[in-house]
Amino acid sequence: MTIDLRARAAALDAADPLAHWRDAFVLRDGLIYFDGNSLGALPKATAARVADTVTGAWGDGLISSWLAADWIAAPRRIGDKIAALLGANPGEVIAADSTSVNIFKALTAALSLRPDRRVIVTVTGNFPTDLYMMQGLARLAGVCVAAVSSESLHDHLDDRVAAVLLTQVHYKTGAVHDLAATTRAVQATGALIIWDLSHSAGAIDVDLNAANADFAVGCGYKFLNGGPGAPGFVFAAARHHAAAPALTGWFGHARPFAFEDDYDPAPGIDRFQCGTPPILGLAALEAGVDLMGHVDRAARRAKSAALGELFIDAMAALCGEFGFRLVSPRDPARRGSQVSFAHPDGYAMMQALKARDVIGDFRAPDIMRFGLTPLYLRHADIVITVEILADICRSRAWDEPAYRIRAAVT
Amino acid sequence: MTIDLRARAAALDAADPLAHWRDAFVLRDGLIYFDGNSLGALPKATAARVADTVTGAWGDGLISSWLAADWIAAPRRIGDKIAALLGANPGEVIAADSTSVNIFKALTAALSLRPDRRVIVTVTGNFPTDLYMMQGLARLAGVCVAAVSSESLHDHLDDRVAAVLLTQVHYKTGAVHDLAATTRAVQATGALIIWDLSHSAGAIDVDLNAANADFAVGCGYKFLNGGPGAPGFVFAAARHHAAAPALTGWFGHARPFAFEDDYDPAPGIDRFQCGTPPILGLAALEAGVDLMGHVDRAARRAKSAALGELFIDAMAALCGEFGFRLVSPRDPARRGSQVSFAHPDGYAMMQALKARDVIGDFRAPDIMRFGLTPLYLRHADIVITVEILADICRSRAWDEPAYRIRAAVT
Repeated sequence: MTIDLRARAAALDAADPLAHWRDAFVLRDGLIYFDGNSLGALPKATAARVADTVTGAWGDGLISSWLAADWIAAPRRIGDKIAALLGANPGEVIAADSTSVNIFKALTAALSLRPDRRVIVTVTGNFPTDLYMMQGLARLAGVCVAAVSSESLHDHLDDRVAAVLLTQVHYKTGAVHDLAATTRAVQATGALIIWDLSHSAGAIDVDLNAANADFAVGCGYKFLNGGPGAPGFVFAAARHHAAAPALTGWFGHARPFAFEDDYDPAPGIDRFQCGTPPILGLAALEAGVDLMGHVDRAARRAKSAALGELFIDAMAALCGEFGFRLVSPRDPARRGSQVSFAHPDGYAMMQALKARDVIGDFRAPDIMRFGLTPLYLRHADIVITVEILADICRSRAWDEPAYRIRAAVT
Repeated sequence: MTIDLRARAAALDAADPLAHWRDAFVLRDGLIYFDGNSLGALPKATAARVADTVTGAWGDGLISSWLAADWIAAPRRIGDKIAALLGANPGEVIAADSTSVNIFKALTAALSLRPDRRVIVTVTGNFPTDLYMMQGLARLAGVCVAAVSSESLHDHLDDRVAAVLLTQVHYKTGAVHDLAATTRAVQATGALIIWDLSHSAGAIDVDLNAANADFAVGCGYKFLNGGPGAPGFVFAAARHHAAAPALTGWFGHARPFAFEDDYDPAPGIDRFQCGTPPILGLAALEAGVDLMGHVDRAARRAKSAALGELFIDAMAALCGEFGFRLVSPRDPARRGSQVSFAHPDGYAMMQALKARDVIGDFRAPDIMRFGLTPLYLRHADIVITVEILADICRSRAWDEPAYRIRAAVT
């Protein structure tokens, strides 16, 4: 069985059109890294890009670099590059702030377009910051949050609902919403859709304008490889550029350097900026986004699916007796770039894998999550991982007190 | 006259206890940099700190660096170091987000503590992002913004006012509010005070707890030398840690990695975090803050005042005939770490200075602004600058068409 899997992996690796991308990343030999969906690996080009920004643009150029190094245009320039990855047009995406802050902008922009509607809807089990940002906004602005089950979502959409915030790829299970169909269904009720693309951007096919999406946000530090706490991004369809996000900082002003007393929003996507752009974080993000712009997207998606199929098949073949339950969709078309398995001892098992140089993560209460980054994972890595996991299960190597101590960050 | 000024500068430089700090910064010979109040110069230690974070912590440590490199604690750790500069206690300051976003947190936190009051007050001519963030919040939350003249501020404080947002050091004039007296006067009306310390932190003496301040925000990229677009900070007095800022992202949750559906604010200052911390920006900010923590604060303030006195005296002696008007307070105790002069041709003059390697900035409509950073400016630089300016005025070197073209960023 293992021999068949190894042969299958070897054949897939030999034919892999993306195999050379692994060399574009800093990854030490022996490490198998399944956390690119949490913190993407470091592109080799990034260190020089950041160093140039620090010593060249900041150190030597000082204040003049706002124009000379075009820092002022970085949020738009990087936004346009992200737009190209997501089926959006230039001028519809801006790179800025955190995903959480951008959620607040998108929600308040949507509310400004639906002034007679006072309910914002999401699903239970959405990524926590999506839920939390909605709750904070609701208390402040006197709107109501409805967090409903995925199954009952459409029953809750009526003429009180201003906006629906959904994460396209579920962070625990990897289950994928159909972008176009869900957008249509939400819009049919008069509400606006806001997509959280944190686990989509750089991971699966996204075509925002083909789906007629209204707003979207996403994360720079996962599949875009922008670095720890990288700036996020926000998309607003061109037809919504008269919307009024509530975080009206000076960089969203039409004339920030006129230093006027009254806020006058910039035309276009720039009104979704807020404070002074985080130039060092943007420099790293741009290096990651530039890399992703050169990757064949069809090949990326095909390899992501193949890695997932191999993982699921290998688990069935080698770990079938150990009580794992696949929680990701079985259909690769409905699965993001990850596979997740539930197991009551999943936390300890993930620690035991880490001790063998296999890095995945755990999400409460019992989910072992393996992010599949087709740019630097090999098919052989999947088989090796499942073989190690089978060995850990057989030997009960996970059953160590030290492996049960929960870290503050999982 | 010039000879007297040069002798005075030479004597001051010879006795300057801070003179050695210039070596801690990247500054090319010949450059005289008066924009440290806009973008502080690069500390020499910063490049290595950022590079270690990129290649070591991110590249090699990957996801494990959240604990192994203590990224998770960076906002608190750096906040504590900033607190020490501002007369605040550990656990009262957090480094996070932009100043603009932190203004929104402080305003909404203050509103949560004064639920029966629905007016927020500031002064006209405050730094634009302070005004703009208030305006966006007002529209969203149904509160009223009163932007009143500084002179009439106290006439507008009544039992409808929840919070007053003031910038301690005015960005154009450098005029300083008395932190303690203004705090007392505002609190006497039952309102809360929010101080914007963007031009104070690292520049003048600030003792937040001695003044009994309620909230404060500030900027990391000016006198703290944290780099372009560095994270800002927010202070909440310990007695206000039950306040409820409205930007309730997952990093402000009591248990962010429990992934619960309902927001439960972290105890203490951590609830003033929002999204995932910007680790690269924080690394650079920490290097700047660490440096500032080693500087003798009394000597810093004394030198800042001496630089300003010398600048004002030199302008009177060498440029008295050219129509400049001092817009900064004449009393050094009431002046921040800058001097500003109004002149109808100020914009073009600043460009002409730049052509002579003297970098200051211009603020509409007519203000030439010279930031005084006592860590890397020499007294001799002041005299050289005013001599150059006198020469520019005498020769009308500023009267070039190219010097009248306004850049997008001034």
